[in-house]
This record gives sequence, structure tokens and C-alpha cells, in this order.
Amino acid sequence: MMRNIALRLMYDGTNYHGWQVQKNAVSVAETLEIAISSVIGEAARVVGCGRTDAGVHAEVYCANFRSSCGIPYDRLPYALNSRLPDDIVVTAALDVPEDFNAIGSCQKKEYTYRVLSRPVGDPFWNNRAWFYPYELDLELMRLAALEMTGTHDFAALRSVGTEVKSTVRTVFYYEIEQNDDIIKFRICADGFLYNMARAMVGTAIYVSRGKIDPGDISGILRSGNRTLAGPTAPAHGLYMTKLWYQGPVGEMLSR
Amino acid sequence: MMRNIALRLMYDGTNYHGWQVQKNAVSVAETLEIAISSVIGEAARVVGCGRTDAGVHAEVYCANFRSSCGIPYDRLPYALNSRLPDDIVVTAALDVPEDFNAIGSCQKKEYTYRVLSRPVGDPFWNNRAWFYPYELDLELMRLAALEMTGTHDFAALRSVGTEVKSTVRTVFYYEIEQNDDIIKFRICADGFLYNMARAMVGTAIYVSRGKIDPGDISGILRSGNRTLAGPTAPAHGLYMTKLWYQGPVGEMLSR
Repeated sequence: MMRNIALRLMYDGTNYHGWQVQKNAVSVAETLEIAISSVIGEAARVVGCGRTDAGVHAEVYCANFRSSCGIPYDRLPYALNSRLPDDIVVTAALDVPEDFNAIGSCQKKEYTYRVLSRPVGDPFWNNRAWFYPYELDLELMRLAALEMTGTHDFAALRSVGTEVKSTVRTVFYYEIEQNDDIIKFRICADGFLYNMARAMVGTAIYVSRGKIDPGDISGILRSGNRTLAGPTAPAHGLYMTKLWYQGPVGEMLSR
Repeated sequence: MMRNIALRLMYDGTNYHGWQVQKNAVSVAETLEIAISSVIGEAARVVGCGRTDAGVHAEVYCANFRSSCGIPYDRLPYALNSRLPDDIVVTAALDVPEDFNAIGSCQKKEYTYRVLSRPVGDPFWNNRAWFYPYELDLELMRLAALEMTGTHDFAALRSVGTEVKSTVRTVFYYEIEQNDDIIKFRICADGFLYNMARAMVGTAIYVSRGKIDPGDISGILRSGNRTLAGPTAPAHGLYMTKLWYQGPVGEMLSR
């Protein structure tokens, strides 16, 4: 019987050229496929919940693959982790219905961007947060975030690269909070265009620096002009942090 | 005028063969000396507050060096950080009296050992905590820790290697606390023998596993026999976390 198996993963993206399988570069998906193939004894093809860029991390990630192997789902994490490098960890697995698809079945996602806000660096946040030694104004950034919340055409806040049918997305929340030296930018949407989360962070920071007025953001969104918004924040501060699915996979991912 | 300058540092020890300058291996001290020499334009020799092993980290560390350079002390962190790799950061500097010495003037130190206690790994703690997937009994480990507190001969809890006049040390506290998946072992003493902190953690874990009874620890200490105590926990879970000095250096380090 052909099974459809969903995996929950975490990974430190520092050493990978992103999620997606590419020629001449080590990706998370390829590394995972090699581990799965070695456990199930046949070639495996994984589908991921989103294309994270080189250096982007995942505190939670969902992938699925098809196999006729007989290994019980609750043994898969241990079997896979013994074959995976330490920077990718499978934290749960589950048999899912035939029509489940990690990307198509995903209802919404949360990305969290971390900025290290202090005068000097912190070696324990290297590759894990964007070190930004200048003052940031949380209240101004929150005003900017509010302007980017809701249903908009986000063409002005993405990098061109991937073909998409529509550039309209719904941002359910964009919250900014500070704990000690770390400022967290948490963005939840029904989908993210290429580099959209990083452009939303770069734009909030441009507002804090006085380069964009919060009141100008709705006009920038309407213009669809990428050059009017703030820059794309570097990849290594970005984490996939929450995923919403219906049913048992949704429960597995929220555990 | 010859100045004596104290530095406060942090470092991720993953890529270094410990603090101490060694032949054929990159140490934190050597890396720091190269950066200082390039800033002050003359050879520099640093004295550190302790010899951390390969892979051991420092959330706080103190070193001092002598120089006749004219750079104001508050400019030194920025100047040094621009020449240091990202995994070593100078967070403060201060002119100190001629007789100050980072190791000799240090009154007590705290090391913190981190254990990642959960069934599967966490990529964000790789090289930063000891992944230990088996059950640990906090209450039993706290009993063991109490037995190791106070003034004792710690010959049974060190590795032979460095010549010392006496193996008697005073442990002021040895506290064990858990936050989510991380168990912290915090040990404060007037000095640490070679591998003493790591042997104290390995011994607490042996007690948790039932291999040593807490009541046997005072006998093990009296025996001076290293083979009766628990193993040396791996280096990558250990951090220098607190230092006590008198006067302005003490204030600089507690900021």
C-alpha cells in the first residue's frame, strides 16, 4: 500500500542553500531525501511547505513523501535522525491522507525575524540574528507593521524571481516585540511571496530610520514599486516558526 | 606611560582549541593578541582569567594586557571588534592598576553547563549544549550537587594535566535548574581544577542514572580516586558565565 507520510522538522539553515533541491548546492530537501532513501531502501521525493532561502532557519517545518515502506511512523524520527547531520532534526512523523500536500494543504504560516539590537555583537547569535547596532524605534516600526497588515497586493514587497498567479496576500498579523537585545518581528500570512517577509522587515527598519513615513506605506503598496519600499533584510535572521494545517497534521505541528 | 588594560569578552569556543596559546592550533588568546597588535601597532601578550578547553564557551571572560598606546579605553571595543572574527566579541575595556592580573585578581568564577534534555536533538543547540536523550532526575542531581558544595579536596573530580600546589577548592554553590528542554548546572568556586566543572556535571548525571549514590560522594572526594566519580561531561556544554573581582573591574564585569 502506498503511504503518504508527513514529517515535522527543525533546521539550522546556515550550511544549506535553502530548502529546495538545486544543482551544485546542498539543500535541506536533498539532505532529507538521502536520509529517507537510506532508511526506506528506495528513492524518495519530498514536498516542503515553502521554499526557504539560503541561510534561513526553521524552528518548525513540514514535508511529506510517498512510500510503501513498513516502518511504523513513530519510529521514523529516530531512524532518520541517526542518518541526518545534526543541523536537521526530524521531531515527529505521521501517516496522512493521500491528498495531503505540505504546501497545498498549508493554510497559513508564521515567520519570525530576529534582530540583535545592541552596540556590540554577540557570538551566540552569529548566523542566527541580524546584528543591527543602531537605535530602533519600536513604536514607529509597529505603526509601519500595522500598515502592512491585511489583504494587499504585495508586489512592492517581494523580489522578482518566482512566477506567481497573483501578488495579493493576506497578512493576519505583524507583531514586533523586544526581549533583552533581541527584537522579534512575527509575521503571519496565508502565503508569502519571494523575499516578502524580509522586505517587510527591511521596510519597518527604514521607517524607524526616518527614510519612509508610516503613512506612505499604503501608497507604496498601491504603487507595486519595489524600489520605494525598504531593503530586503539578510536571510540569516529569518525563521519559519509556525504552520497551520487542518486535522491531525495541524495537531502534530502545534505540539 | 605603560598602561594595564582589562577587557571583557564573550566567545563561542566551537572553532578554537581553547583559550591558551598553543603551537599548531588556533586559540582565543592568540586570535585576540593578533587583533590587539594590529590596533595598537605593537606586540601584545594577554593574560586570561582561566584556561578554557577546546569547545568551551564564555558569556563573560576577562583578559588584561600592557601597552603604552594612546587609544582611549572606551574606543578599544569597537577598534578590536572590527579586527576580530564574529565568534569573539570585546564588550568593554578599562584602564586598571598596574598590579591587576586577570587570573591572580579573580576572586571567584561561575561556570554554567547546559544539557539539552529531550528525546530528539535541537539544531539550534548544536555545539552549545550536551544533547542527552535519557531521563534525568533533578532532585537526585541536586542532592549530589549539595554533596559537592563546600571546601573539599577535589582530586577525585579533575583530570590530571596541570601542576597545582593544592587540589583543595571551595565550591560556594552548585545549583541545577531546568527551563524547558535546557538543564543548567551553575557552579561557583574560588577556583577550578582541570576539568573539575565537567567532572562535577558528569558525577551528578551518574547519580541520576543510579550509578553512584549521593551518599557516596563525600567518600569519593575523600578517596581522591578519579575513577570512582562520574565521567567528564563533553566540553561543548560548558560556559564561563560570571567573574568576581574587586573594584572597577568587578563593576565592569557585572554590567
